[in-house]
Amino acid sequence: MKILKVAVLGGSGYAGGELLRLLHLHRNVQVSIVTSEKWAGSPVSSAFPHLSSYERHVFEPLAAEGAEERAELFFLALPHKTAKAAAARLMKAGKHVVDLSADFRLRDPAVYEEWYATEHTERSLLKRAVYGLPELYRDRIRKARLVANPGCYPTSAILALMPAIREGLIRDEGIVIDSKSGVSGAGRSLQLPFLASEVNEGVRAYGLATHRHTPEIEQEVSSLFGRTTVVDFTPHLIPMDRGILTTAYLRLARAVTAEKVHEAYSRIYSREPFVQVLPLGEYPLTKNVRGSNFCHVGVQVNRRTGTLLVVSAIDNLVKGAAGQAVHNMNLMMGFEETEGISGMGVFP
Amino acid sequence: MKILKVAVLGGSGYAGGELLRLLHLHRNVQVSIVTSEKWAGSPVSSAFPHLSSYERHVFEPLAAEGAEERAELFFLALPHKTAKAAAARLMKAGKHVVDLSADFRLRDPAVYEEWYATEHTERSLLKRAVYGLPELYRDRIRKARLVANPGCYPTSAILALMPAIREGLIRDEGIVIDSKSGVSGAGRSLQLPFLASEVNEGVRAYGLATHRHTPEIEQEVSSLFGRTTVVDFTPHLIPMDRGILTTAYLRLARAVTAEKVHEAYSRIYSREPFVQVLPLGEYPLTKNVRGSNFCHVGVQVNRRTGTLLVVSAIDNLVKGAAGQAVHNMNLMMGFEETEGISGMGVFP
Amino acid sequence: MKILKVAVLGGSGYAGGELLRLLHLHRNVQVSIVTSEKWAGSPVSSAFPHLSSYERHVFEPLAAEGAEERAELFFLALPHKTAKAAAARLMKAGKHVVDLSADFRLRDPAVYEEWYATEHTERSLLKRAVYGLPELYRDRIRKARLVANPGCYPTSAILALMPAIREGLIRDEGIVIDSKSGVSGAGRSLQLPFLASEVNEGVRAYGLATHRHTPEIEQEVSSLFGRTTVVDFTPHLIPMDRGILTTAYLRLARAVTAEKVHEAYSRIYSREPFVQVLPLGEYPLTKNVRGSNFCHVGVQVNRRTGTLLVVSAIDNLVKGAAGQAVHNMNLMMGFEETEGISGMGVFP
Amino acid sequence: MKILKVAVLGGSGYAGGELLRLLHLHRNVQVSIVTSEKWAGSPVSSAFPHLSSYERHVFEPLAAEGAEERAELFFLALPHKTAKAAAARLMKAGKHVVDLSADFRLRDPAVYEEWYATEHTERSLLKRAVYGLPELYRDRIRKARLVANPGCYPTSAILALMPAIREGLIRDEGIVIDSKSGVSGAGRSLQLPFLASEVNEGVRAYGLATHRHTPEIEQEVSSLFGRTTVVDFTPHLIPMDRGILTTAYLRLARAVTAEKVHEAYSRIYSREPFVQVLPLGEYPLTKNVRGSNFCHVGVQVNRRTGTLLVVSAIDNLVKGAAGQAVHNMNLMMGFEETEGISGMGVFP
Repeated sequence: MKILKVAVLGGSGYAGGELLRLLHLHRNVQVSIVTSEKWAGSPVSSAFPHLSSYERHVFEPLAAEGAEERAELFFLALPHKTAKAAAARLMKAGKHVVDLSADFRLRDPAVYEEWYATEHTERSLLKRAVYGLPELYRDRIRKARLVANPGCYPTSAILALMPAIREGLIRDEGIVIDSKSGVSGAGRSLQLPFLASEVNEGVRAYGLATHRHTPEIEQEVSSLFGRTTVVDFTPHLIPMDRGILTTAYLRLARAVTAEKVHEAYSRIYSREPFVQVLPLGEYPLTKNVRGSNFCHVGVQVNRRTGTLLVVSAIDNLVKGAAGQAVHNMNLMMGFEETEGISGMGVFP
Repeated sequence: MKILKVAVLGGSGYAGGELLRLLHLHRNVQVSIVTSEKWAGSPVSSAFPHLSSYERHVFEPLAAEGAEERAELFFLALPHKTAKAAAARLMKAGKHVVDLSADFRLRDPAVYEEWYATEHTERSLLKRAVYGLPELYRDRIRKARLVANPGCYPTSAILALMPAIREGLIRDEGIVIDSKSGVSGAGRSLQLPFLASEVNEGVRAYGLATHRHTPEIEQEVSSLFGRTTVVDFTPHLIPMDRGILTTAYLRLARAVTAEKVHEAYSRIYSREPFVQVLPLGEYPLTKNVRGSNFCHVGVQVNRRTGTLLVVSAIDNLVKGAAGQAVHNMNLMMGFEETEGISGMGVFP
Repeated sequence: MKILKVAVLGGSGYAGGELLRLLHLHRNVQVSIVTSEKWAGSPVSSAFPHLSSYERHVFEPLAAEGAEERAELFFLALPHKTAKAAAARLMKAGKHVVDLSADFRLRDPAVYEEWYATEHTERSLLKRAVYGLPELYRDRIRKARLVANPGCYPTSAILALMPAIREGLIRDEGIVIDSKSGVSGAGRSLQLPFLASEVNEGVRAYGLATHRHTPEIEQEVSSLFGRTTVVDFTPHLIPMDRGILTTAYLRLARAVTAEKVHEAYSRIYSREPFVQVLPLGEYPLTKNVRGSNFCHVGVQVNRRTGTLLVVSAIDNLVKGAAGQAVHNMNLMMGFEETEGISGMGVFP
Repeated sequence: MKILKVAVLGGSGYAGGELLRLLHLHRNVQVSIVTSEKWAGSPVSSAFPHLSSYERHVFEPLAAEGAEERAELFFLALPHKTAKAAAARLMKAGKHVVDLSADFRLRDPAVYEEWYATEHTERSLLKRAVYGLPELYRDRIRKARLVANPGCYPTSAILALMPAIREGLIRDEGIVIDSKSGVSGAGRSLQLPFLASEVNEGVRAYGLATHRHTPEIEQEVSSLFGRTTVVDFTPHLIPMDRGILTTAYLRLARAVTAEKVHEAYSRIYSREPFVQVLPLGEYPLTKNVRGSNFCHVGVQVNRRTGTLLVVSAIDNLVKGAAGQAVHNMNLMMGFEETEGISGMGVFP
């Protein structure tokens, strides 16, 4: 069996660390290079003592001599802007790229420039990028060389809405997406609101009406509806490490029972290895997917208000980042689809 | 200064314990009797070691000889049904009653019977009960002998919506109320989903389309609108002890700026001792009101969707239960309104 | 490759659930039967929604017809007494048994009877049981048919002390073992002290001078010293799901530097696949081993007091229970030693 | 009633914020000035939204013109060094000072210089400072103008040991003090180990054999024994906001029953308003003193090892910092001893 050499660029953040954890369990790959500007020169285990099996890996700088030659597939867990430039360089060198940043997620560069307040310097490359949500774009991902790994909130939101839109169950207005995320979603940077004493025992909303994942959700929702659609999306910070729970409020297009909705969701997701529709009357708990690449979905109908309620749960660092990136790699390289990410949630 | 003798019936649950904590700080009252069926005969500190200043109080059974003679005002932290019967007995004896159960919150007994699946056996008494939300019914509470202390979720939801409805800012449809509560809201009963190992590090939605606080919210929202209004209300369980954060999504009736909304909320709550409208652009964190009777409110407008976003935070055991009960007592008995409940949040 | 059929008796507790999670990742085994008295007849996923890959497994009662014929190796995650009897039955039927209960851990039945306050009804079988700590008894485990899987606290304590005793670094008196455990160690039973509202945001000591893991620690410590030794062991409950941190205070037998101690620990554990001695000056964090079978160890010397300080961290459900059980199975059956349990900690 | 003007220097850290919360409830004082270098010019509520009743207070710089004239008693919640200099200035101006830093806790300046690696520039002032543990030095505090408020760990440790030493129950060797603290003890500074994602769901030991609170504990323990005594002290970081639990292992000087020990502790603490000895067989939970100035103490004897076990619990920000500072002020100024700090723990 041939072993693929892969690189993790930006390996000292939480998504990078999770990639390293998952790739270690993957039988078809070997991590040949890990970069970090901040920790360059230090062993991986100094930044992440839990990654003890990487005892021989040392962080290198992004600009390390010949780095591009040492792997065939590159995971980019880099900040915006940096990711774009690195992707361009690697694509030119004929490599495969899975970009975990937002740089290639929005198909319209004008939307990117509006929400990220920076120029999109790789517009031609943008056209070749595939939005890496396997449940929507599996076939295109298989042929892609550049995959834009979806955001964590959009992953949970789009998986919650997709069957309802495809089945024509809901209207394209009044869509409310209320998401609750663990604090690892904020990354490993030092900011007052993410100190343990500030986070613990509290809940807050943030980014009201302005969160950058909004256009990403709207892009896919619009594409599914076949017309431009806006949504209300509000993220919340929850005192836990991992997990996103998304509660979607959707206006029913016509009277329909919960059973019918449940049947549609079950049918559409029946062959998906990572999406599980819970029995009717049960709702997801993020803890049940913690550490795993699974997405749990529950549905209900409020007949008094004519609302379809959909709740989805993912681990933001796995299905919302590193796990989905490995899934995309598996599709791009023709590996078994679930290789390295078949583990179930760590509960409790 | 005359000291009022008060009773706490049902003192071994979390709301009862919180009442005891707050009443100890109150200069006008003395707790003369505390009941608990489960702990009858044991000192209060056996159920609640934190209530060390109650070292001489022993739990008595509800049916203790002469209990009704030993206090002038009774807080009922009893289960439904039990509360109704106790309230009837005490009212007949000429006592003042603050009932923390749901038994007298719904003005229409038919609605009560539908949602609580039990007969309302005290229909005549129900007419005399005042819904104990001081921000709405201060004057009526002052004259009441029986106050129905609001539910925790309704308190947070109604305070979030009231100014918007009063000012005619929003439409009476498409109202979404997404609430996040700490686990003390589930009470002190032994159920698997509330074990620490099940709650910690996870978020879940529950009671979709069926939670009993829905009709309570709708009653007050309908009353404010002047016509029957339904809402989508979904509660969530958050891995923390205390606190409710409510995120309300309200369809704007007309184009309005966030500044105007903020001005309206600030004006309407300017004289309220326990409601604080945060500066525009800031949103509440439940931890900032933990242990206090305050409600923090933040507002924003999403111009892209035409939605008014309102976020409110309370401590479910204080403003959502025991603190509001003390506030109601203060109004009923003519005490200073903030007596015993002027403490600020315990942060961090 | 031949697939071994294994059974999990008592599969609805946390250790049982963790066994199922780990066994699913194991290439040499297949779970052919899972029992639970409480959940008999229900699918595994009803008790544990995270175990979604067990969608076709249904809990059976322990007494299910022919259960003993359907597997070759049995994991017993049963209560005391029940475990003893089941082990006896299975041993008679020629099966391999890994018992996670305490029934066969104490070699002296009199000690068992004193601490567990019940008769040891399988004294002859007790002689054939091997204490399943691979770092101490690897060779014996390889030949055993009945392995007594160690307790979670003893695992963390013995691994912290063993090198110091073997190297003659410490005295056999004044040994203090202060352990801190996550709440999953308390199991999945409904008791007031383990409700989330009681556990969250607090620390407590319990079982002072009386915890049943004390004789288990003393048995192995005495065996290492070659003479009867008593220890002070105090467990504490920490507001987290998983993990045990043990801080050991050991009186140095002679002046020795931290470097020398570190060298000895590193040497002794150098070939152990699951024990990692951290660089001198670093100390373990339980979170770094969460979900993994690793044990992290850190050492220090307090020259002012003549004390050797050793800190160890494990996941109580993995190295402290299910992972070590799989490790024992791997040794007993000649599988690769780390098969199914090579995953690193889930951080953050 | 005359109102005392007080100042809080360093009001934007957690201890400073807690002082402001408590002083607001105090009937004899008024906070006339609050300083913060970092937040100078901003309203108190911008740093601490929970302190909403301070809406008119604005942080000033320490060097604000005439600051020293605007209060009679100054609480110093400043970093080391800064505190020393400020104290000297204020003492010269005839003010009363309660210093929450470590600058005046160690009576021997050489010990200070060894552990804090900085010169003690106020040696003459040091002689006038009184160690502010009311349970030990109540009378001296009453007459003091400069009180050194004890460290959080030392408060919990000394209260655990004092009765045992006074009664001659224990030996002066082999003393082990294992403490577990919530993360607010680390202050409000931005450091990676205190990010929520790093702290949550984990326990670690730190500062082994080197923590600066060690000499403070040893100073008071030596003073009680009447001879120089060293102790093993190890602090641990617990995933919770507030609270310190200290477990002390003490070698009994002679055979004594748990009942006798309990009797001694109960007697010695019988008149202390803030120390409560729990019934024999019960042990403290930090959560029961959260937000309060109480210290709970539990005792046990391990007859097998000849060890006295004492467990104490405090809130590190109250009894371990701000609450004790207010207590000291009450003593210094002749206020009622429990004024402003009589509130019980906020549980759950």
